[in-house]
Amino acid sequence: MKARVTVTLKSGVLDPQGKAIEGGLAALGFAGVDSVRQGKVFDLEISGRDANAARADLAAMCEKLLANTVIENYDIEIL
Amino acid sequence: MKARVTVTLKSGVLDPQGKAIEGGLAALGFAGVDSVRQGKVFDLEISGRDANAARADLAAMCEKLLANTVIENYDIEIL
Repeated sequence: MKARVTVTLKSGVLDPQGKAIEGGLAALGFAGVDSVRQGKVFDLEISGRDANAARADLAAMCEKLLANTVIENYDIEIL
Repeated sequence: MKARVTVTLKSGVLDPQGKAIEGGLAALGFAGVDSVRQGKVFDLEISGRDANAARADLAAMCEKLLANTVIENYDIEIL
């Protein structure tokens, strides 16, 4: 089973990397970009056929390793 | 207009970071994770109302800055 976990910064958390990309895009001549925020995506291949069990496992993985839940949100998609 | 750009490694490109996460998950006791690959996600806020123009702009941004198209694929979503 394939799953995608997307980890993004919570709103309000400063994102200097996103700001740098925003500056880079402006310097390259791309007008009209009001904000950029960068996050992470994890594509996992999971054995087993139970989507609900997989979703619960993935949530535990996010809480323990994939995301810093103090400053980041995570979103789990079973593909 | 909000857009999300997802940048992932092309298949066949080694992903040591993904391998390290896979090892970390195994060490934490998560069995059944067959592979992990890490990518990047960019959440952009774009001014303008034309989705097609925004999509073309985003593709140009990916080609020039957001993705290394030699080793990475990108996917553009207008939200």
